[in-house]
Amino acid sequence: MNEELQGHERASGDAYARAGVDIGAGNAAVALYRARTAGWRHANQLDALGNFAGLFAYPTPDAENVLVGSADGVGTKILVAAALRRYDTVGQDLVNHCVNDILVTNATPLFFLDYLAVGALDPEMAGQVVSGVHQACQRNNVALLGGETAEMPGLYAPGHFDLAGTIVGTVRRAELPQVESVNVGDAIIGLPSNGLQTNGYSLARKVIPEEEWSAPFDGATVGERLLAIHPSFSEPVRAIQRVARVKAMAHITGGGLLENVPRTLRAGVQAVFDARAWSVPAIVAEVARRAQLSHEECYRTLNMGVGFTLIVPAEDAAAALAAVPNAVSVGRIEARSDGEPAVIVRPRTAA
Amino acid sequence: MNEELQGHERASGDAYARAGVDIGAGNAAVALYRARTAGWRHANQLDALGNFAGLFAYPTPDAENVLVGSADGVGTKILVAAALRRYDTVGQDLVNHCVNDILVTNATPLFFLDYLAVGALDPEMAGQVVSGVHQACQRNNVALLGGETAEMPGLYAPGHFDLAGTIVGTVRRAELPQVESVNVGDAIIGLPSNGLQTNGYSLARKVIPEEEWSAPFDGATVGERLLAIHPSFSEPVRAIQRVARVKAMAHITGGGLLENVPRTLRAGVQAVFDARAWSVPAIVAEVARRAQLSHEECYRTLNMGVGFTLIVPAEDAAAALAAVPNAVSVGRIEARSDGEPAVIVRPRTAA
Repeated sequence: MNEELQGHERASGDAYARAGVDIGAGNAAVALYRARTAGWRHANQLDALGNFAGLFAYPTPDAENVLVGSADGVGTKILVAAALRRYDTVGQDLVNHCVNDILVTNATPLFFLDYLAVGALDPEMAGQVVSGVHQACQRNNVALLGGETAEMPGLYAPGHFDLAGTIVGTVRRAELPQVESVNVGDAIIGLPSNGLQTNGYSLARKVIPEEEWSAPFDGATVGERLLAIHPSFSEPVRAIQRVARVKAMAHITGGGLLENVPRTLRAGVQAVFDARAWSVPAIVAEVARRAQLSHEECYRTLNMGVGFTLIVPAEDAAAALAAVPNAVSVGRIEARSDGEPAVIVRPRTAA
Repeated sequence: MNEELQGHERASGDAYARAGVDIGAGNAAVALYRARTAGWRHANQLDALGNFAGLFAYPTPDAENVLVGSADGVGTKILVAAALRRYDTVGQDLVNHCVNDILVTNATPLFFLDYLAVGALDPEMAGQVVSGVHQACQRNNVALLGGETAEMPGLYAPGHFDLAGTIVGTVRRAELPQVESVNVGDAIIGLPSNGLQTNGYSLARKVIPEEEWSAPFDGATVGERLLAIHPSFSEPVRAIQRVARVKAMAHITGGGLLENVPRTLRAGVQAVFDARAWSVPAIVAEVARRAQLSHEECYRTLNMGVGFTLIVPAEDAAAALAAVPNAVSVGRIEARSDGEPAVIVRPRTAA
């Protein structure tokens, strides 16, 4: 993926084909984006860091300020929210997701703009959506700078809506993570997810039909567990950075550990995870079980319990873990030979 | 509209109710947004300038840099493009629309991020959409910093898609338009539109059924005229600014002259337009005629031929007009008494 298109993410995982999402088409689209935008790039655009966000050199005299931008949607989690008429959570999912995406570059978020599209405008519903966006903006100290509410009869079915947004943050050039400094022996710290986050919903909706969403599950209902709000990892990451040298980070979204961790991993090293180190939220395990995902598919499709990863020197790991109560040592960096994968997840149960 | 929600625009015009767009619901939603976001605002957020874009004080030492952000969609113009399988123009509409929105604050655009949502991903179609986005970015010297392509089976019908985007620009605080300096006697310069731009499509689609879109019209086809690309007004505005003092600007989008010009008009003055001064694109006139819009409805719903307005001192008007061949003197600023409207459009034909 080239820099013009950094952030042109796609849902990932072979399992997705079964849920009606075509990964081959996604790859073909990205190839076409690349070809058709190759002719020109703005002079201030910088090479991206794992494509979680785009980087733009802000034209101030010292040229040290970098603006960081990322756009995202909520995916078909929106259809779960619409079916359950629960409109205050998806805005929080969206803002937190975006905050996490630029956190990978060490950026401080500045402002956010949302796009809400509906077929027929229900003010109360729209008010709840924007209220959720605003709540999460406040919690992350991000200005809600604007937005667009579009009523588009004919494009969205009654009761359906879509929600997307863009975040902009800032980072000093010298504070961008130094991913080249990752060494063999470094520790990988994981921050736990609390559910599917914002990925895997086309699959989840296929294997857990809507009729079951009000059934009790894991101390709540299936629907409540499906709508668990994507957490912002801003506070725990900042807490870890105060006590440990963080070399690289990854936000575990569509593509799971297998596709997201390599995005900020240098050549010659691999991330080896030990799945016995952490637990999988019940709703995530349920989706994986029902979809009969293989080990590989699990870690390429779902977050499997790890929401965000940080690579720190081994000697800083204890301090990092002490700084954030629910942080877990999830793996370590090892040497990678030609032909070896960038990420290995040792299974929960011995094969 | 308060600052947290600047840019939460809505389609406007009473005529819209007949096209299935509920203005009352739009107003109610905006009122709810206001109420539910009133409790908190980021310290760096500045008062907006007519709500075309949001303003954020960028934290550099001199505090003189302002970041300007605006989010927008293409509205149901997208359904015309989808029906005609013409995918390379809507991206240009979107970028140009966003460039114009922040141009009102005098901002230089820096970067853009797009959001493309589809039901089933057709790589060729998506490639054409993003190619259009990139083309317009290049033409406006805006970095295409990233984007999101979301495949959402179940939310979008086959062949349907939605496209939205966010632009970020920058302006020095001292270079923000001084709208308080607008005086009685100032001239209003108009830049012509070339069609409906990006507003009025729910109405247009209702009064001009799809069966007619391939019919010849105005030297092309109805469909081609409907899809005329929303122009970027960046170059003519910069050309005028080189020779004239520009006090205030407005981008004429949904809401027409009647609702957009007042957004940057100070109290005590009114903008008086003389509609005999300019011509109306044939496709716009056709929509107005078929929808049987009243004079008032025309200028509250459609751009009626004026795409962008600039207020300059009367003595600078001749230079401004000379700088841009198709710029037109469209009206002047007069004194406004209590109870008088902010905008008056003197009709083309005497009443």
